[in-house]
Amino acid sequence: MPFKITKFISFIFISTLLLSIQAQAPTKFTATQLETAARIRDAALEQNKGYAIVESLTTEVGPRMAGAEGDALGVKWAIAKFNELGFDKVWTEPVTFPTWTRGVEEASITSPFKQKLFITALGNSIGTSDQGMVGEIIQFDTLDDLKAAEAGQVEGKIVFISKKMERFKDGHGYGQTVGARSSGSVVAAEKGAKAIVIRSVGTDSDRMPHTGNMRYKEGVRKIPAAAMSNPDADLVMNMLKRGKPVTLQMTITSESGEDYTSHNVIGEITGSTYPDEVVALGAHLDSWDLGTGAIDDGAGVGIVMAAADLIQEKAERPKRTIRVILFANEEQGLWGGKAYAEAHKNEFKQHIVAAESDFGAGKIYKFSTKFKPEALAVADQIHSVLEPLGIERGTNKAGPGPDFIHSAKYGMAVVALSQDGTDYFDYHHTPNDTLDKINPESLTQNVATYSAFAYLMANLEGDVGFFPAQ
Amino acid sequence: MPFKITKFISFIFISTLLLSIQAQAPTKFTATQLETAARIRDAALEQNKGYAIVESLTTEVGPRMAGAEGDALGVKWAIAKFNELGFDKVWTEPVTFPTWTRGVEEASITSPFKQKLFITALGNSIGTSDQGMVGEIIQFDTLDDLKAAEAGQVEGKIVFISKKMERFKDGHGYGQTVGARSSGSVVAAEKGAKAIVIRSVGTDSDRMPHTGNMRYKEGVRKIPAAAMSNPDADLVMNMLKRGKPVTLQMTITSESGEDYTSHNVIGEITGSTYPDEVVALGAHLDSWDLGTGAIDDGAGVGIVMAAADLIQEKAERPKRTIRVILFANEEQGLWGGKAYAEAHKNEFKQHIVAAESDFGAGKIYKFSTKFKPEALAVADQIHSVLEPLGIERGTNKAGPGPDFIHSAKYGMAVVALSQDGTDYFDYHHTPNDTLDKINPESLTQNVATYSAFAYLMANLEGDVGFFPAQ
Repeated sequence: MPFKITKFISFIFISTLLLSIQAQAPTKFTATQLETAARIRDAALEQNKGYAIVESLTTEVGPRMAGAEGDALGVKWAIAKFNELGFDKVWTEPVTFPTWTRGVEEASITSPFKQKLFITALGNSIGTSDQGMVGEIIQFDTLDDLKAAEAGQVEGKIVFISKKMERFKDGHGYGQTVGARSSGSVVAAEKGAKAIVIRSVGTDSDRMPHTGNMRYKEGVRKIPAAAMSNPDADLVMNMLKRGKPVTLQMTITSESGEDYTSHNVIGEITGSTYPDEVVALGAHLDSWDLGTGAIDDGAGVGIVMAAADLIQEKAERPKRTIRVILFANEEQGLWGGKAYAEAHKNEFKQHIVAAESDFGAGKIYKFSTKFKPEALAVADQIHSVLEPLGIERGTNKAGPGPDFIHSAKYGMAVVALSQDGTDYFDYHHTPNDTLDKINPESLTQNVATYSAFAYLMANLEGDVGFFPAQ
Repeated sequence: MPFKITKFISFIFISTLLLSIQAQAPTKFTATQLETAARIRDAALEQNKGYAIVESLTTEVGPRMAGAEGDALGVKWAIAKFNELGFDKVWTEPVTFPTWTRGVEEASITSPFKQKLFITALGNSIGTSDQGMVGEIIQFDTLDDLKAAEAGQVEGKIVFISKKMERFKDGHGYGQTVGARSSGSVVAAEKGAKAIVIRSVGTDSDRMPHTGNMRYKEGVRKIPAAAMSNPDADLVMNMLKRGKPVTLQMTITSESGEDYTSHNVIGEITGSTYPDEVVALGAHLDSWDLGTGAIDDGAGVGIVMAAADLIQEKAERPKRTIRVILFANEEQGLWGGKAYAEAHKNEFKQHIVAAESDFGAGKIYKFSTKFKPEALAVADQIHSVLEPLGIERGTNKAGPGPDFIHSAKYGMAVVALSQDGTDYFDYHHTPNDTLDKINPESLTQNVATYSAFAYLMANLEGDVGFFPAQ
């Protein structure tokens, strides 16, 4: 039979199959399958392969800022590590994005008291002139307060937003605070500010500013944007309390550069029965430049690589393919996730489920799903294997991890394996993002969770639903 | 009566008096005195004056490295603060010492993996050339291991001592570790090393190296000396584990400079009955340059200033003088303490007792003394007033605080008000030594302790002993 006809018949067959399984409940797992998953889970707890992978990445590569020297080293490392672990298929897919480089970043209060400040430029932001700038600080408690301010107050000044991020297990203080970082410069510039400096989006009290991405808006003047550490923000607040003008001197030489092509690095354990059907596990390979990218997201890389590796080591080849995707440039705008979505947009009906690890190495405490109702019984079965790890059953309203946001629009089912992120934002995007911040035991619990979950999903007969964007 | 004769008669009288009271037990405190001390203690707990003083010092002056710009600003601040608080006498005494300036401090591992390291030069150390130096690392677990090494192993290499400081409430891990910092360079140089880099003497895992003083030895070649942060030391250890030579590049431009004259700043609440007899409370005004000198030793400054101030505010003028001494340049060799000892060497028989606060702002948990046996009953009475603050009675083997070491040789009785220093060495000598590390409630407990103690000692009839060095 000529190739094209075979392919056409396959297409009809698969489409029909997908439509038919869509409406049906998947077959419940057998006792043997659940036992095997439990065995893999327990074997994971006896290993430290996930930690060894992060140790390797942070020691041998270190910082992997998108487009910087560490980016290519990271890609090279990931290919070698997948091959070393014996993945069946290892390949890369190009991801092109604009680059940004950090330069000098110096600041001090010059009046009423001279004190050095610890600041860092926000990703994507422009520099000052090489001679720096000087301006009076105008402080706002929140981004909303800045939005509500008269332009006359702000004109020619350096905006300082002092809102402090609150600490929560699920990290939701981040969403409440990060707006000042991502879009504060646009609001400030629209009111005539010459620069913006925010209190770091972080829960620590270390004298280390937190970097992170920011965005400009077409048609709005670009102004320098930086973050100061929490203790520095406290210091400036104490100076402001005295009621005299507070003047900031700041020199930043960050700049945007040429486009760069990095790569998503992908490794597969090929399925025995449905090799084209994919259980997708994700993490991102890039990091910021300040730390060694251990919790963000070396931990995720270690977790998903080790989880897939454990399955090939401890069980018979699963029916479906387990695909581990290490995304390029998550930090500066989900570029790897977008590229993956675009490259695979016609294949998402065969992406049965996706799970991403990008929140450090804290213990997983909740298993949430976005499954069709008919599949909730198998979700509960999966949960029964995870429960001994201290994991509760969450809702059926899970959202995708950041790198799967763009892919998920095409309809993949997703799960969220929520991690305890109580201390995640102490270190996030700072030089303190180093290996010692990872608790090996917690990381291992993550590997156990991902491996048991992925093993079951890769052996499920039937699907858990399909949710294309409306 | 001519002046000289008066002075001579006074001398005879005082000498006789001192000899006679030496052998006697001091008069026990009256119930009223103990009640007044308790009232002062409780009033202290209702105030935040100690914290306000540290806030003022760290906000308005910030870093106060000996001989640097902040030194003179600190002296000016202290004079103004004593006057603002209404101390009866405020004066300065000169302290002259050599200066040291920090310059560039950059390091990276260049092989087998390129990674930036976070280092800081040790106080008093020389720089590399402006072009930096490159050398292979030779690692030792401890200073003793370095001492035991063959010179041939060390020759031409960069010594790395990796011993990690342990965390204890009383901070005794410091003494077990600091030798590598203070004298490691001498041992390394004697064996032909080109430089020494130690794991920071600190209990944290922040990516902030800890500075601190080091000493060279006459006749031994001076080599650059630096500390790397704990996470960096871990990183280097992980590289070394791989068994390949690890090469360090380092550029340091620290240098020694001209002599500088700073000042001990002294404020007194003058005694009503025995104005020449002194209860000495000490802290040091200088700090390292990296942080704002909040815990080391802004806290001590706040505690002893506020304690003396409370007594003048809350009680009748005490019989003896309460003298608050803010020492210059403790950090680089106890220069202020030495100058005070020299300037007052003929007066220490009238220094009835000394107590120094130089261990942050953690709660005081123990009251130890070095009193004559006949005075232990009054020590117990003092303790009875401190006990409600959660303070246990320690031994009678107390030693002086660092700035009183040289004075104590002349015989002063001393007390040690031991603080909980569990987290002190997380921040000590780093940029993280900032106001937010001070718990205002703990600081207030310190003020309450010092004020009750000083009030009682200033009103004691009789002495607690005199212990000149043998």
